[in-house]
Amino acid sequence: MLQLFGYWRSSASFRVRLVLQLKGLSYEQHPVHLGKGEQKEKAYRRINPQGLVPFLIDSEVQVGQSVAIMEYLDETYPAHPLMPSAAQERARVRQIVNMIACDVHPLDNLRVLNYLEQELGQSKTARDAWYRHWIDETFKALEPLLMTTAGVYCVGNEVTLADCMLVPQVYNARRYNMTLDDYPTIARIVANCEQLQAFIKAAPANQPDAQG
Amino acid sequence: MLQLFGYWRSSASFRVRLVLQLKGLSYEQHPVHLGKGEQKEKAYRRINPQGLVPFLIDSEVQVGQSVAIMEYLDETYPAHPLMPSAAQERARVRQIVNMIACDVHPLDNLRVLNYLEQELGQSKTARDAWYRHWIDETFKALEPLLMTTAGVYCVGNEVTLADCMLVPQVYNARRYNMTLDDYPTIARIVANCEQLQAFIKAAPANQPDAQG
Repeated sequence: MLQLFGYWRSSASFRVRLVLQLKGLSYEQHPVHLGKGEQKEKAYRRINPQGLVPFLIDSEVQVGQSVAIMEYLDETYPAHPLMPSAAQERARVRQIVNMIACDVHPLDNLRVLNYLEQELGQSKTARDAWYRHWIDETFKALEPLLMTTAGVYCVGNEVTLADCMLVPQVYNARRYNMTLDDYPTIARIVANCEQLQAFIKAAPANQPDAQG
Repeated sequence: MLQLFGYWRSSASFRVRLVLQLKGLSYEQHPVHLGKGEQKEKAYRRINPQGLVPFLIDSEVQVGQSVAIMEYLDETYPAHPLMPSAAQERARVRQIVNMIACDVHPLDNLRVLNYLEQELGQSKTARDAWYRHWIDETFKALEPLLMTTAGVYCVGNEVTLADCMLVPQVYNARRYNMTLDDYPTIARIVANCEQLQAFIKAAPANQPDAQG
């Protein structure tokens, strides 16, 4: 049985849950409470020395980093593929994946927000503006790109890894009260995704460790 | 002929140059001067609307995001593969790739350093400490991981995409006068890579747009 270490509200964990659900894979969830700092404790560091979630154990195979886990699952469990077969489309999916994985999410990660407050003495207002700024910067570039690649979903009419990145990022944007008014294509794709059972099952609010 | 838009000192451009050199692919370089802000100008935005380097054009195919470009090149030009064939090892390579692509580099990107100075009023000292902090955070986790995966290179005894990420990141660390004294495995792998012709040819100092 696949073992997923994650946290309900971690958008990187959400990405991996989406892949597991879309591929119909059973898995056991092991919550790591980021709010309580459990990811930094020795017990968890013995599992993942980097002290980050998500982390996947598949028998002998152990993988950290959400994008590496997603690619691993898609290669290892080929049913319900989440990558297109054509090189150009694969490149587009990975471009979108990396625009979110690299250019937005790491900047808005909890450890970075903590550094802004604790090391650089920034106010909550400045911290929140930072958070929204990096989402807007990438969404501004993503919106016109998606206008050229999207069908029902980010790239064409099949769900891909790009959708598994976009929906959790939009979840984060909403947590900070951002609207998608300036990003109609993003809004449309996310609405389409959110109708699918896999996206409902993987949603943060529907996890066993979710809190109100 | 492959067309690469990049900048000599951009470590993300350096990654792609390494893949091109290791695979023996000819390419034309189009320098985009980041110091002068050419990546934000209309002429370049027409090529890559995100206004970032690197960007690759391969006839009809256009790809942004260094990691997406690297995966595209490795899939499209299979000679001299830079990914192992076994699932576990592929996952390890991608884990290392993402530890650098996501957890270090985006935080130390020029646009982020500019935001720290201009929007948050941080001093050069605080900015430099930030830069080193995120490198150290990931290298501290990378060093023990590499002790379990490395042979001559990051994963086993063949050069992979992980090495194409590590060497440019170490180049950045050196620019900020960081030593690798605490990271002997990283230091050993980088020294091994730097003996290879491809790494010499792709190095920032050896690019046509390099400045003293």
